[in-house]
Amino acid sequence: MSCDHKNPVIGIIMGSESDMPAMEPCMKQLEEFGVPYEVKVASAHRKPAEVHEWASTAHERGIKVIIAAAGKAAHLGGVVAAYTPDPVIAVPMKTSDLGGLDSLLSMVQMPSGVPVATVAINGAKNAAVLAVQIMGTGCDGARQKIIDMKKAMAEA
Amino acid sequence: MSCDHKNPVIGIIMGSESDMPAMEPCMKQLEEFGVPYEVKVASAHRKPAEVHEWASTAHERGIKVIIAAAGKAAHLGGVVAAYTPDPVIAVPMKTSDLGGLDSLLSMVQMPSGVPVATVAINGAKNAAVLAVQIMGTGCDGARQKIIDMKKAMAEA
Amino acid sequence: MSCDHKNPVIGIIMGSESDMPAMEPCMKQLEEFGVPYEVKVASAHRKPAEVHEWASTAHERGIKVIIAAAGKAAHLGGVVAAYTPDPVIAVPMKTSDLGGLDSLLSMVQMPSGVPVATVAINGAKNAAVLAVQIMGTGCDGARQKIIDMKKAMAEA
Amino acid sequence: MSCDHKNPVIGIIMGSESDMPAMEPCMKQLEEFGVPYEVKVASAHRKPAEVHEWASTAHERGIKVIIAAAGKAAHLGGVVAAYTPDPVIAVPMKTSDLGGLDSLLSMVQMPSGVPVATVAINGAKNAAVLAVQIMGTGCDGARQKIIDMKKAMAEA
Amino acid sequence: MSCDHKNPVIGIIMGSESDMPAMEPCMKQLEEFGVPYEVKVASAHRKPAEVHEWASTAHERGIKVIIAAAGKAAHLGGVVAAYTPDPVIAVPMKTSDLGGLDSLLSMVQMPSGVPVATVAINGAKNAAVLAVQIMGTGCDGARQKIIDMKKAMAEA
Amino acid sequence: MSCDHKNPVIGIIMGSESDMPAMEPCMKQLEEFGVPYEVKVASAHRKPAEVHEWASTAHERGIKVIIAAAGKAAHLGGVVAAYTPDPVIAVPMKTSDLGGLDSLLSMVQMPSGVPVATVAINGAKNAAVLAVQIMGTGCDGARQKIIDMKKAMAEA
Amino acid sequence: MSCDHKNPVIGIIMGSESDMPAMEPCMKQLEEFGVPYEVKVASAHRKPAEVHEWASTAHERGIKVIIAAAGKAAHLGGVVAAYTPDPVIAVPMKTSDLGGLDSLLSMVQMPSGVPVATVAINGAKNAAVLAVQIMGTGCDGARQKIIDMKKAMAEA
Amino acid sequence: MSCDHKNPVIGIIMGSESDMPAMEPCMKQLEEFGVPYEVKVASAHRKPAEVHEWASTAHERGIKVIIAAAGKAAHLGGVVAAYTPDPVIAVPMKTSDLGGLDSLLSMVQMPSGVPVATVAINGAKNAAVLAVQIMGTGCDGARQKIIDMKKAMAEA
Repeated sequence: MSCDHKNPVIGIIMGSESDMPAMEPCMKQLEEFGVPYEVKVASAHRKPAEVHEWASTAHERGIKVIIAAAGKAAHLGGVVAAYTPDPVIAVPMKTSDLGGLDSLLSMVQMPSGVPVATVAINGAKNAAVLAVQIMGTGCDGARQKIIDMKKAMAEA
Repeated sequence: MSCDHKNPVIGIIMGSESDMPAMEPCMKQLEEFGVPYEVKVASAHRKPAEVHEWASTAHERGIKVIIAAAGKAAHLGGVVAAYTPDPVIAVPMKTSDLGGLDSLLSMVQMPSGVPVATVAINGAKNAAVLAVQIMGTGCDGARQKIIDMKKAMAEA
Repeated sequence: MSCDHKNPVIGIIMGSESDMPAMEPCMKQLEEFGVPYEVKVASAHRKPAEVHEWASTAHERGIKVIIAAAGKAAHLGGVVAAYTPDPVIAVPMKTSDLGGLDSLLSMVQMPSGVPVATVAINGAKNAAVLAVQIMGTGCDGARQKIIDMKKAMAEA
Repeated sequence: MSCDHKNPVIGIIMGSESDMPAMEPCMKQLEEFGVPYEVKVASAHRKPAEVHEWASTAHERGIKVIIAAAGKAAHLGGVVAAYTPDPVIAVPMKTSDLGGLDSLLSMVQMPSGVPVATVAINGAKNAAVLAVQIMGTGCDGARQKIIDMKKAMAEA
Repeated sequence: MSCDHKNPVIGIIMGSESDMPAMEPCMKQLEEFGVPYEVKVASAHRKPAEVHEWASTAHERGIKVIIAAAGKAAHLGGVVAAYTPDPVIAVPMKTSDLGGLDSLLSMVQMPSGVPVATVAINGAKNAAVLAVQIMGTGCDGARQKIIDMKKAMAEA
Repeated sequence: MSCDHKNPVIGIIMGSESDMPAMEPCMKQLEEFGVPYEVKVASAHRKPAEVHEWASTAHERGIKVIIAAAGKAAHLGGVVAAYTPDPVIAVPMKTSDLGGLDSLLSMVQMPSGVPVATVAINGAKNAAVLAVQIMGTGCDGARQKIIDMKKAMAEA
Repeated sequence: MSCDHKNPVIGIIMGSESDMPAMEPCMKQLEEFGVPYEVKVASAHRKPAEVHEWASTAHERGIKVIIAAAGKAAHLGGVVAAYTPDPVIAVPMKTSDLGGLDSLLSMVQMPSGVPVATVAINGAKNAAVLAVQIMGTGCDGARQKIIDMKKAMAEA
Repeated sequence: MSCDHKNPVIGIIMGSESDMPAMEPCMKQLEEFGVPYEVKVASAHRKPAEVHEWASTAHERGIKVIIAAAGKAAHLGGVVAAYTPDPVIAVPMKTSDLGGLDSLLSMVQMPSGVPVATVAINGAKNAAVLAVQIMGTGCDGARQKIIDMKKAMAEA
């Protein structure tokens, strides 16, 4: 399958502007892969309609995988997953009181029928890697990027 | 203020039919108080539109306080709170693996601007008491019910 | 119901002077809402009689909702709730050793009959929002403040 | 010092009738030691005045050490300690959801100035042993009972 | 892209025969979706060469997504992910002592460069859903199955 | 009973010189009470014979209550308690990795027959207060010091 | 080195008779290996002198590796390690309230200078395997037993 | 047995260059003991073949005990243990979010048949002590080093 994407195929959403520094390794990794992405900042609780709209229309815009980052009672991944059939990767943000255990459990313990693919606390770079691995199941070019990255890591 | 309600003023929502037994003490307590309520079963993740609709129209139906019960990555309280200006009480359900610590943190650690009033794990009866305490701030009859209950407890 | 309050309707109590900085967002938010409040500093353990007196007479002074902030073995919310039929909101203070998990469990896991409405660790601003949401069940003006705040958040 | 007590010198208080089975090893151990005790069941939250009265007058009745057992947001030890200058031993009750971690943290993490001497979760027998150890600092007979018990354990 | 698979495209691996009952909802869900899968039982620690061989050759056999289930110090997901560029979904098994917190942290906290997509403790069904969501990024037929499932859930 | 002690009646032992700053509030509080104490630094693991000797002979030196402070796998309280019939108060030291949860559980969860009276993590001052409360059961002068302190706290 | 031992070379000690069933897989595994062992039941807290004597003389009796099993505030491993220069393996016992997290932290978090080699909660069989691995560093026969066991596991 | 080793007998492996500072006390302690060691930096996930090769050939190079340090989902100890019959000591690295609880559980909770000997979080020095204790079971010279160290600690 040809998959040399010009337009964003990964949609990144985060609950707060304050999550941006922790998510930068995600954007940087996608740029290294040469995979175009879009970024949205919107809280599932403060801007529910905006999140709903963004998630529901992501596929039409060409988005194939969503990465959601949030902290504390981190509902963003689950809320987005409720509105899209596409895979949602969750990045639990480290928190200043419980270290991110709250964010992690709020994201990973999703009930039956609506999974989110959770990575490590503050695992922003790995969210990008996983997104491209997922792209790679339908796109040899994306898969090759992962093969190359793994080879580079093994030889580093 | 006159507040002898004939129609439901408390809206109870739970994420799954399986939460019903744990929530029965809530319904029973409201019946003892003589406070009418309505019950809805709908998952925030599996039926997001239905939850949205129910929460958004609760006030029009006469609901003044919402009680949301859910387990695991328990987003129901937060999702409902995103769609209503009215107070939302959250009851974290006990879980078979982490004992309910996941439900508790997913509910109580809400981000700035959108609180949910969280009670104990499986604290169904207390959710009813708190709902009536809240009603009591605007309604002497409801407040009197709490005074009577506390007196009865003290003399038990 | 007319509810343009001139005198304090929210009573804030904290266990120690050292909790004041963490609670400032609570006071600031109430001021933004224009809801008058009173503040009390008294430990449930070091000044039990004073806490008893303050909680028991709060209603007479016009207080409709109480916000209690405390850390570690945070009993203040429960002790106040024992002496008043009115709703008590608890703010668990972050602690330097266990991050506030101790404060949270000490507040939220209240036994049957005496709930406290617990918000997030250091969730001072949300305690104010919840207090006004509670006021709003009996007072359209308070409810309108929340509607306005939610609208502002959604448009921010 | 002569210390052959005829009247209760240990006061046991528990938050709920349901704590009785877990506390039986405490009573049994005091009986084996031949140390007279009294038992009170009263919740710090449901019967605050009764707990206040019982704790404040314990010394007049001859009580020298208090043992308080409670579960969940276990405030009983701290509330009693607020009303008496005498040592208070706390027994955190095992809970069905968090295993007693909630009870433990609610009891042991007491703030500055008002300690409670906390033993293990469901450590009812040890509460009795500790109470008699405490008696033994002022009473050679009580101290001898502990020496004898330790000798018996070592030879068992 | 045509994607009517006759041969297994999902590879399920579990650390022990004892994980089979907990993983049955995964197989059942894939069968409902009509997505062919293969199953392997091999411990990363007791049969490292066999796991290595299985993971390294999965792609050649047509496997596009791997689901790894393990408990306690659950290394299976990470070990498999080390040997394949394809996405690995991890299912932390509930454990009898720590409830599965050990399995969860052992799986989700993967270091930089090698993510595993972790679902809930014992989240076997959700692993299947996520695998098909991932397939759906390159295959409209798989994506349609998720759309249908979500519609059925919403109408249930 | 006359109890104007000239020689140390409280024995403080800590596992490491590095625990000294955290324990200073204990010494300071005993000085404010005018209760003489002795201090020993010795690890239960590195200097077991020295700890054994110190604990076994404490009573002969006039010590009535022992305060043991240690961190991590904090065995010092239990080891001392094994060698003396007198009450042992344990102060769990805050740790840099787990916040002191390790120290707390290692101290408070003592098995049947050998309690230690555990106070809060880094609860050094409270250990002193508890020690004097214990002295007060056999000595009116010590008890009066606590009454005075509580009065001062209530009036602060 | 010849190492066909006729007399016990592994010493197993447990804190309570009640730990015996959980430790049976340890004894069984040693028997399968044909490695002679001795078993001792003695609490570090209730029988400190007996534990001291047993640990101090283990080497003279031919013991090369010690396995210590205990629960709750599990000091046995550390206490034994204080009295012997030989390696001590600790098996944290599962507990009914905290699942064994207390036992684990009490054993593994040993302070500088006195390690204990901790295995999983209730990891009795693995303690035996580790003991024979340790024997194998000085004894080819023991090492061969592990090689054979690993081969059998890989082929199972 | 003669055991004056000229070549490395301890193999230290760590998952990342960033673990080096935390592991320095391990190297320093081995140098104080005069026990030669080798050091390898390789991630079990990023360089699985290199780890496999290093672990599988360690014995041929004369290594008798392996020390593995890693953080987060710390699989390194288990992966190495899968490839060698020799004892593997694991050092869980402190983490910035969960304090090292994730590393600890990922290492210590090893399944049946493949133990790793886990020491404290960041217990680098103790890993060295334990390695030499293990050497001492087959080598009187190594054992004497521990005896001397323990004597020095007792007299410090």
